[in-house]
Amino acid sequence: TLAASDGDDDVDMTAGKSIYMVSDGTGWTVEHAVGAALGQFEHCLVDRGCAVNTHLFSGIDDLERLMEIIKQAAKEGAMVVYTLADPSMAESAKQACNIWGVPNIDMLGPITQSIASHLNVSPSGGPRKYPLTDEYFRRIEAIEFTIKQDDGALPQNLHKADIVLAGVSRTGKTPLSIYLSQKGYKVANVPIVMGVPLPETLFEIDPEKVFGLTINPLVLQTIRRARAKSLGFSEGMRSNYSEMDHVREELEYARRILARNPVWPIIEVTGKAIEETAAVVLRLYHDRKHKCSMPRISKRY
Amino acid sequence: TLAASDGDDDVDMTAGKSIYMVSDGTGWTVEHAVGAALGQFEHCLVDRGCAVNTHLFSGIDDLERLMEIIKQAAKEGAMVVYTLADPSMAESAKQACNIWGVPNIDMLGPITQSIASHLNVSPSGGPRKYPLTDEYFRRIEAIEFTIKQDDGALPQNLHKADIVLAGVSRTGKTPLSIYLSQKGYKVANVPIVMGVPLPETLFEIDPEKVFGLTINPLVLQTIRRARAKSLGFSEGMRSNYSEMDHVREELEYARRILARNPVWPIIEVTGKAIEETAAVVLRLYHDRKHKCSMPRISKRY
Ligand SMILES: Nc1ncnc2c1ncn2[C@@H]1O[C@H](COP(=O)(O)O)[C@@H](O)[C@H]1O
Ligand SMILES: Nc1ncnc2c1ncn2[C@@H]1O[C@H](COP(=O)(O)O)[C@@H](O)[C@H]1O
Ligand SMILES: [Mg+2]
Ligand SMILES: [Mg+2]
Repeated sequence: TLAASDGDDDVDMTAGKSIYMVSDGTGWTVEHAVGAALGQFEHCLVDRGCAVNTHLFSGIDDLERLMEIIKQAAKEGAMVVYTLADPSMAESAKQACNIWGVPNIDMLGPITQSIASHLNVSPSGGPRKYPLTDEYFRRIEAIEFTIKQDDGALPQNLHKADIVLAGVSRTGKTPLSIYLSQKGYKVANVPIVMGVPLPETLFEIDPEKVFGLTINPLVLQTIRRARAKSLGFSEGMRSNYSEMDHVREELEYARRILARNPVWPIIEVTGKAIEETAAVVLRLYHDRKHKCSMPRISKRY
Repeated sequence: TLAASDGDDDVDMTAGKSIYMVSDGTGWTVEHAVGAALGQFEHCLVDRGCAVNTHLFSGIDDLERLMEIIKQAAKEGAMVVYTLADPSMAESAKQACNIWGVPNIDMLGPITQSIASHLNVSPSGGPRKYPLTDEYFRRIEAIEFTIKQDDGALPQNLHKADIVLAGVSRTGKTPLSIYLSQKGYKVANVPIVMGVPLPETLFEIDPEKVFGLTINPLVLQTIRRARAKSLGFSEGMRSNYSEMDHVREELEYARRILARNPVWPIIEVTGKAIEETAAVVLRLYHDRKHKCSMPRISKRY
């Protein structure tokens, strides 16, 4: 089987332009930046007007391998995007690219230098190390908490959650919970199902941390139909789960439930990716905590 | 309760230097880049020699709010790091910052321009949209699959996984599985516990997708002690779980089990953050699939 996000490294990579991403660390920073920038070329990526292949080289902390990669980029006509903490490695990358005519861009140097002058402190130039701080371990704990609370499990723990998500089936509660947990929030999600009473605790906990999710009925029906098919539901079960009358009725039922507590914001998830819904939830979450004039998410390093 | 990663927005933010992060989208790209760059200042962040506060402003897609934020940054002596897809917004940000003497850096423009000339295509300049592509839905499916397979559940599904992780308790199997699933891989994890037989299916599936995790016994003992305490284990249970003889014996047991299949690589997780272990796993995973001369992770856009 192919892993979804990368199955593509089995396809023909000779067509299209290549982007080499090089890091002395994990490469996740450069991958994220290139992914965002490629968003600006969706109009031509979608119809394959321009095909782009990215190649991630992580853990590149010696000059020899760095030069090999740049040579290969030159051969392939690729561009190189890099994050290299050691300034002499970064300088070598730039020079080699320029000599061999390889378009190149440093994703770490400029921001590091800006921050250095802002703080008036020199960067370490040291190799990548994800520090295993208390915050790190709290994040791991948040992930484990969140998994255990999935799908309405352990309602007696709702008061321990930072954020509680409530919504009907297929509003994305599970992946959204997981995404938020990776950012360090303990999340619980509670499914709203007609005929199934909600846990009492949902109404007893701090309402400031509860968020309702809602979705357009047509879109929900489409998603549920696909899911019912993939789960191999029988005709009968399927109709109850994904037929329009039922979908509408269930969303209306959810609306009434959520309205019982007017403090809970209702978040519309239609057409939003998990990352986008997460941004909305966290914006509201932090605003409510701070009632700041300018909505922001603050963090101390 | 405070959300771990951000609880800090309750502390005194007047001390230290501020970094304003501004995006017309979710802000996750600029947050990631600033986080990586701050890694270069760990030496002075750790002992609070320099305190840094970050403030994330997401969904900033009108000039008025953008100017308000920059004005506030000027007042606070903050620097501004931004990702703004619309070139005229980016230009306004730069100009306003320069007029008000605010150090600033564009995290999207330079890479977008490099890619534009490499592809010979103009960037859309359009607002952020996470496209809900097939790949997106496969990622969501991978997350849901992975949660259901946690902690050895549903061994009959191991053949459906892209990656299977095996290791003793507290080697980070669960958070690592989740991290990989967000990248689109279907992951299953199987705990190795003395006296509990492993599922037969583990030995029947493609061995190229199985990875063993191991850890230094001293470090494992420390982690387990903390966990036993937080779970409120009784003295007796605790000693069996976290005492040194038991820990060593269990790791040795795991070593023998894992050695039964020499194709499975053993990954040392001691001192590594989940993100780092994930980089190691994926590097191996893609190398084995491609036997490339130069280890890389490739992807088509
Ligand atoms: N904590 C840190 N200490 C030193 N360098 C770091 C740290 N975090 C990130 N970096 C650097 O940031 C870049 C991106 O890291 P990565 O996302 O792991 O590829 C690499 O060049 C790393 O060397
Ligand atoms: N698919 C996309 N289409 C257009 N712009 C995008 C896309 N993905 C990312 N961007 C831009 O990339 C920057 C980072 O996005 P974000 O991580 O959501 O803050 C923002 O300025 C977005 O406008
Ligand atoms: Mg769910
Ligand atoms: Mg586990």
